Amino acid sequence: MALRTRTIFFLSDHTGISVETLGNALLAPFPSVNFERHNLPFIDTISKAEEAREKILENQHQTGLPPIVFSTLMDPVIRAITRQSDALCFDFLETFTAPLEQSLGVTAVREDIKVHGLGQANEYDDRIDAINFTLAHDDGVDAKRLNDADIILVGVSRAAKTPTCVYLSVQYGVRAANFPITEDDLEDQQLPGSLQGLTSKLFGLTISPTRIQQIRQERRPDSRYASLAQCQFEVRQAEKLFKRHKIPYLETTHLSIEELSTKIMQLTGVARHNRKL
Amino acid sequence: MALRTRTIFFLSDHTGISVETLGNALLAPFPSVNFERHNLPFIDTISKAEEAREKILENQHQTGLPPIVFSTLMDPVIRAITRQSDALCFDFLETFTAPLEQSLGVTAVREDIKVHGLGQANEYDDRIDAINFTLAHDDGVDAKRLNDADIILVGVSRAAKTPTCVYLSVQYGVRAANFPITEDDLEDQQLPGSLQGLTSKLFGLTISPTRIQQIRQERRPDSRYASLAQCQFEVRQAEKLFKRHKIPYLETTHLSIEELSTKIMQLTGVARHNRKL
Repeated sequence: MALRTRTIFFLSDHTGISVETLGNALLAPFPSVNFERHNLPFIDTISKAEEAREKILENQHQTGLPPIVFSTLMDPVIRAITRQSDALCFDFLETFTAPLEQSLGVTAVREDIKVHGLGQANEYDDRIDAINFTLAHDDGVDAKRLNDADIILVGVSRAAKTPTCVYLSVQYGVRAANFPITEDDLEDQQLPGSLQGLTSKLFGLTISPTRIQQIRQERRPDSRYASLAQCQFEVRQAEKLFKRHKIPYLETTHLSIEELSTKIMQLTGVARHNRKL
Repeated sequence: MALRTRTIFFLSDHTGISVETLGNALLAPFPSVNFERHNLPFIDTISKAEEAREKILENQHQTGLPPIVFSTLMDPVIRAITRQSDALCFDFLETFTAPLEQSLGVTAVREDIKVHGLGQANEYDDRIDAINFTLAHDDGVDAKRLNDADIILVGVSRAAKTPTCVYLSVQYGVRAANFPITEDDLEDQQLPGSLQGLTSKLFGLTISPTRIQQIRQERRPDSRYASLAQCQFEVRQAEKLFKRHKIPYLETTHLSIEELSTKIMQLTGVARHNRKL
């Protein structure tokens, strides 16, 4: 049976990151429906609201089905314009702001709230510093400043260290460095010299030998680096090294970088530098 | 007047990224309240639900105020346990899933929905490839494969090219490279040789001379690189270059990387490779 298709509009007066995130979480439990997504961010004037309304009406006319609209529009006038259609509208702020106001005993500020804007300058600068730090300390580069890291991911080549570090810095503002474990380290069961004294910052990533073999095979086909025997050796020795030096570690084979990052934050208790995103 | 403090709990059976994003969007319009945030992800068993309930009850007892709970828990049994308190509970999925089911004419799948998990393997691999591509093509490195970029950010040093590229790759799965414009390029008003033939992929970032001076001053105090005259020259010439070669560009001074990335996606129409996050 062919998938049905329904049109989704994400409406926001700012980046749309929040509304897309929650909207997509709500749509995920409907895998049998094919969703055609339209992102309409920065709807902050009446004319942009009217443009959005025209797109919604046009889609409704074309498909013969009411579109589904997810919105975090704050301004009641702009919101009212976008609602002039038969679409099913989910206004997140409208739904939840009134009970929050009541519980907090404070009226919500409705102007110029930029959830994904610069915000507190210090906090924003900390996040950008974390991203720059992470890029500068990828794969063991610039080991001198490793002491400034909040966390240092260690593991064999292609165990997802780099993308996980990047996600940790972008999402949580954490200074995440990563450091490769070489074959010599694996044989000696010693930590690389640059990591001496930094054991409390280390977190290990491991992966199934067959998965890492597959990844390496794509990068350097039929090399020793990509042989199953080599992958098995490295993974076994790396896990032994983690245990020996009491480094906490996770198996990455079936985890996304979002899952890995959240689990690492939870297991290490490393402080976030961007609590509000 | 001292800020009031209210405790917030974010409950999720998975990473908690969605619930934190929407919860924080809802709290942003209350700047006069100080929120103490507790993130409780991966609540996927009855015992973890009971642990979460104890934390909520303990906080309520300590503060004498009902905590505020934001939740995306899917399982009704687990959800019911976490609700055994006087907390104000916002269950996003519970609130919106029923009307969605009705409009779609399909029942929501309640098991094993991992919004920020590996999902479709191809789509996930594309995102990781994009992050790796972006890191490998930071600051003009490896110009040979620039042709594979979805977008190439250009601009003077410290105009936010690197963190914006990183965000574009993480959030939208876009292969974002960046390339510095040198003083020679600025004087000649010519694009660097590596960018010839790639004009359609270029997007410029500019910044106010006083802001870039401030950033550079922190990195290399009292250098020619950080002098106001040099910053003014570079910014003026860069904007002239963008206009001459018809490269669209944005002023980054007052924009976050989230705002820049969303605007770049909107202005260029570059396709996302991770539509569902």
